[in-house]
Amino acid sequence: MPVGTRATVKTMAPWEVRDLGAEIVLGNTYHLYLRPGSDRIARLGGLHSFMGWHGPILTDSGGFQVFSLQHLRRFDDDGVRFRSHIDGSEHYFTPELVVRAQEELGADIIMCLDVCADAHDRAGLEVALDRTHRWAERCREAQRRPDLTLFGIVQGGVYEDLRAASADYLVGLDFPGYAIGGLSVGESKEDMHRILEMTTPRLPQDRPRYLMGVGSPEDFWECVERGIDMFDCVLPTRVARNGAAFTWDGRANLRNARFADDPEPLMDDCDCPACRHFSCAYLRHLVQAEEILGLRLITAHNLRFFVRVMERIRSAIENGSFAEEKAEFLARYRTVDPGVRRANVEARRRSQGR
Amino acid sequence: MPVGTRATVKTMAPWEVRDLGAEIVLGNTYHLYLRPGSDRIARLGGLHSFMGWHGPILTDSGGFQVFSLQHLRRFDDDGVRFRSHIDGSEHYFTPELVVRAQEELGADIIMCLDVCADAHDRAGLEVALDRTHRWAERCREAQRRPDLTLFGIVQGGVYEDLRAASADYLVGLDFPGYAIGGLSVGESKEDMHRILEMTTPRLPQDRPRYLMGVGSPEDFWECVERGIDMFDCVLPTRVARNGAAFTWDGRANLRNARFADDPEPLMDDCDCPACRHFSCAYLRHLVQAEEILGLRLITAHNLRFFVRVMERIRSAIENGSFAEEKAEFLARYRTVDPGVRRANVEARRRSQGR
Repeated sequence: MPVGTRATVKTMAPWEVRDLGAEIVLGNTYHLYLRPGSDRIARLGGLHSFMGWHGPILTDSGGFQVFSLQHLRRFDDDGVRFRSHIDGSEHYFTPELVVRAQEELGADIIMCLDVCADAHDRAGLEVALDRTHRWAERCREAQRRPDLTLFGIVQGGVYEDLRAASADYLVGLDFPGYAIGGLSVGESKEDMHRILEMTTPRLPQDRPRYLMGVGSPEDFWECVERGIDMFDCVLPTRVARNGAAFTWDGRANLRNARFADDPEPLMDDCDCPACRHFSCAYLRHLVQAEEILGLRLITAHNLRFFVRVMERIRSAIENGSFAEEKAEFLARYRTVDPGVRRANVEARRRSQGR
Repeated sequence: MPVGTRATVKTMAPWEVRDLGAEIVLGNTYHLYLRPGSDRIARLGGLHSFMGWHGPILTDSGGFQVFSLQHLRRFDDDGVRFRSHIDGSEHYFTPELVVRAQEELGADIIMCLDVCADAHDRAGLEVALDRTHRWAERCREAQRRPDLTLFGIVQGGVYEDLRAASADYLVGLDFPGYAIGGLSVGESKEDMHRILEMTTPRLPQDRPRYLMGVGSPEDFWECVERGIDMFDCVLPTRVARNGAAFTWDGRANLRNARFADDPEPLMDDCDCPACRHFSCAYLRHLVQAEEILGLRLITAHNLRFFVRVMERIRSAIENGSFAEEKAEFLARYRTVDPGVRRANVEARRRSQGR
């Protein structure tokens, strides 16, 4: 799912996102509740009409964004009090309010309000988990629109017993879909894979499993292999705005001087607007000159690349060639150094509330 | 002509510019010579291919941009020495170099290197005019590619005798088209109209007359009436980036709270992507949230509006109803206060080199 936090997939028009092959986009309740207001969007006919996206939309509950506000929020058993990052105004999110806000937005898939905690802080996670479970029940009770699909969110950090308890509790509530939250927030890839391996088997096979905030192209292969069906991540749109483009060989930074005279497109076999119409030399010029068209074209390319990775994974599953295709992809694709990745995750975490 | 200074009409893809009805765009020799280099663009197949614009292109010579550098440039009889606004590197533009650079870019219409001066500084204008004329001759001599059309540029500030001398001199050189430069740089509208009224009759009826750097929708009516055929201006793209949209009633600022709940498009009778797909409320949300899609949509709307004003002017001329249509347009269109306009011109002037 391309991320459209504030009712727009950054730099893209909705018809472009559709033409790139994306089928569903993500919006964010925290951001839209504060600005322009979920009540306002409801009066204007709902989020689909407001943002001109006529495919499915999933809205995140805002739990992670509020958690990321750090010094601006305080949790209690009933909800979370926080200050808006926009104007400092005080707000109080409860499970009921967050469901109502998402019903006002009118997304197709809506999320329970969950409580995040540091993935390695066991005591903090236990308190958070208890609240997450009770809030999940309250969210289910609060739902008024049966046409929206409410997902539960499994938490529990890097602890297998907490994850097991969380998955079992939520499955007991019989949600039509399950998300796994609190991963890809700074823990190692090994921890993430270990948790997925023991969590997804506890979630029903016939319900979608959504890994929140993940990930990179290599993550898709690793996590689909571990039972994940849905992803969302700002990576393709965010790194595009730094001039970085995804290719089958890994990320390419268009600021690099080697592109200055390159008459070829970014990728030979790509059908995105950047690759169909322009050379690397032109893309680099736009990036160097800080022209918005550069951000647009690289964003489009990256979204198309992510969609294609998922298409390749789906067809590999259908053809029974997942293991070979995964090995082939990973053999060629140069991943980002773990140190760089951790720094990126930290930067993302710090800026998430904004 | 939409302005595509650095080989892109800001925020727009070339196919969008075409779909908005624009037939020709402007590029800038000063900017493209410095970055990415006119020689590089030549190696990459020329400006059309580089920027993916397959209609006509006019390139300005860079005379005005160098003039706007103020403390970074020094004119002599042979050319102008200046420092790049990008990296401080020193360069020397001569008429011959500027023609060669434009031939490298391979635009369809290219401009002579002219010398600008303060529109009210008679002594400065006399020196500048003498150089402008000798440089025009040198540009004509320097031209190697007969497939490009070289325009002469009439200068002379607000002085009728200087303008007359300049027009007559250039007409003596028999250019296939003529531009009028050094207007819309801070002088009054009355001065601009007075100069046009006495200048355009001295230019041949069968050659295009291009008023450089103008203008606003009301300027189009006033200046076409005074014999102008071609315009270029950053106004539609620049003000879009401040959230201002053009309508038949004048400019509307989308930051205004009155748009917050407005479910209607910017204009009922507009076929641009912003008006076809989105409400004013959504456009305002994008502007308030500083989302790039907002800049894109308002830019597209403004370009479409400018194209439509020119379409209306052309059809009014064909129908013999120019005077009535002009009166009707101006009766409804609320122009920007002259004080605001002067401040805008000053701001534009200061930032032109950048």
